[in-house]
Amino acid sequence: MGLRVALVGATGAVGAQFLDILGKGRLQVDELRLLASKRSVGKSLDFHGQSLPVAEATPDSFEGIDVAFVTAGGDISRELCPAAAKAGAIAVDDSSVFRLEPGVPLVVPEINADDLEGHHGIVSTPNCCTVPVAMALHTLRQASPIRSVITSTYQSVSGAGTAAVRELTEQSAQVLAGEAVKPDVFPHQIAFNALPQVDKFLDDGYTAEEWKMREEARKILGAPGLPFSATCVRVPVFQAHSFAVNVEFEGPVSPATARRLLSEMPGVRLSDTGTGDPYAHPVEAAGTDDVFVGRIREDTARPNGLVLWITADNLRKGAALNCIQIAEELLRRDLFPKR
Amino acid sequence: MGLRVALVGATGAVGAQFLDILGKGRLQVDELRLLASKRSVGKSLDFHGQSLPVAEATPDSFEGIDVAFVTAGGDISRELCPAAAKAGAIAVDDSSVFRLEPGVPLVVPEINADDLEGHHGIVSTPNCCTVPVAMALHTLRQASPIRSVITSTYQSVSGAGTAAVRELTEQSAQVLAGEAVKPDVFPHQIAFNALPQVDKFLDDGYTAEEWKMREEARKILGAPGLPFSATCVRVPVFQAHSFAVNVEFEGPVSPATARRLLSEMPGVRLSDTGTGDPYAHPVEAAGTDDVFVGRIREDTARPNGLVLWITADNLRKGAALNCIQIAEELLRRDLFPKR
Repeated sequence: MGLRVALVGATGAVGAQFLDILGKGRLQVDELRLLASKRSVGKSLDFHGQSLPVAEATPDSFEGIDVAFVTAGGDISRELCPAAAKAGAIAVDDSSVFRLEPGVPLVVPEINADDLEGHHGIVSTPNCCTVPVAMALHTLRQASPIRSVITSTYQSVSGAGTAAVRELTEQSAQVLAGEAVKPDVFPHQIAFNALPQVDKFLDDGYTAEEWKMREEARKILGAPGLPFSATCVRVPVFQAHSFAVNVEFEGPVSPATARRLLSEMPGVRLSDTGTGDPYAHPVEAAGTDDVFVGRIREDTARPNGLVLWITADNLRKGAALNCIQIAEELLRRDLFPKR
Repeated sequence: MGLRVALVGATGAVGAQFLDILGKGRLQVDELRLLASKRSVGKSLDFHGQSLPVAEATPDSFEGIDVAFVTAGGDISRELCPAAAKAGAIAVDDSSVFRLEPGVPLVVPEINADDLEGHHGIVSTPNCCTVPVAMALHTLRQASPIRSVITSTYQSVSGAGTAAVRELTEQSAQVLAGEAVKPDVFPHQIAFNALPQVDKFLDDGYTAEEWKMREEARKILGAPGLPFSATCVRVPVFQAHSFAVNVEFEGPVSPATARRLLSEMPGVRLSDTGTGDPYAHPVEAAGTDDVFVGRIREDTARPNGLVLWITADNLRKGAALNCIQIAEELLRRDLFPKR
């Protein structure tokens, strides 16, 4: 028996990755209902060689659905996830709306799949920055408890949607042609620039993105109060986010131990293997399913510290793939409501 | 009385900035001798509305010269700085060759101009990454001694020379046109990518660039052994380097105190002023002389910590401007050999 799947946000950047991954047979899909905003009605999208129509996503879209993947922004999630749950589906939500709510599992299956057991119809997937960093931290805390985490991000524009991808494309051509650019999606020119602002500023000087990374990592790792700070920076990269991460442990953890643990972790690909470059870069990681971890070295700033370089596709393990893995895990644990 | 100036590397990216800054009257120049490799002989460059010929840089180029600015790579510096000093000039060197040698002042004039007093004919200017970060650290240690520093860089391609600027330009056009790219200056595609490798890898897993930042900062700040680690990353930006910096102090330093100190520091421009964006970005900093410091906030990962965002033009304060300031300071202190 397969699943009856709804995909809200089917026409977006993450939606395309869902269709790609599901199309490769990652979940057994009995029915796929493509949903989007009213202006996409009439479009159709390819899935498994079939052309499927896009319907308008409304609270009534979820009758007979087992799992609704919702990736269309916070406002849509706030309206449609409870509707999907009420209709008997499990909503797997890619927005930040429910992530920190008590009772809503925030899950990276390799880390805290057990948290799914307590779901009430809505499960959240973490921010695309949180997933790869949490994967590495969870792996490494097997060697020693983590004392603190400092990270700086190099985030691609696709995290901000298809309009952002278009903006980088158009602005880049304009700059190369010597023309003026006019920012729209981003607060300043993004082409050939780096903007230390993702989402809005909060009162303490952090951005909402930096706050999300911190609070979500704490929840996923089950480590409330974990000392954690992030500087989130948008760079002119199309797809895949990267991270410089300084991890401080309670006791010594050698780079060799870190490499061994990371090489054994499902979903992680060790870049620092002794041959070739000890790192992956975003162009290499884009379109792949793994979290690449490399440049593992002792932190010369802190005892018991390691420094890492992490790269992962923000649309896949950072979003669509993680949602699909959540559905696989719900199925394995028989957590879908009986029909 | 003005100075008789030689500029070795006049046709390069940093050379152009020297001509721009000197052309605006920053030093009183009695004579300007433009020098470069043999293949540039026959070219001429504009200075102060005059067209000046480019001559070949040789050990015999420095007769009658007061100050030789040398910015043509390590090999040229190794040969020509001692020759310039022997001819009675002071060589102000932009390469890494002499920076950590005892007896060679490594100077950011706002920080350690006194170190110039002990010069023996060669003075080094720090790496373009070291200068802006050291400026901020020096300012902030007035509030409390620094315990440790962690930084991640967002470095523009112009730090790798004019061929690197051309490579980013050409590759960007190729990617936009859907064509394949072939890396030459950089180890992988730099267009729409981020490469956590600047310079070669050392045995401990750090790159030479990261090692330079650490060791040079220690020397400039007179803080041998300062716990310091860097992750240096090349991003597709043309001009101006940026830095996420986590500074840990011995005692508490509030963001308000940091802002006050930074607002009073010559050469620093405070971005985080309470109006507008609390940061500058590389496109904004390119072509300017200041070190922009913003996004000042408490570090949620460490007690007594602050997080900063720094941006500065790597070719100006990171190179040409700092060299010219060194010459100004040598003049002010009457440290040039008597004619």
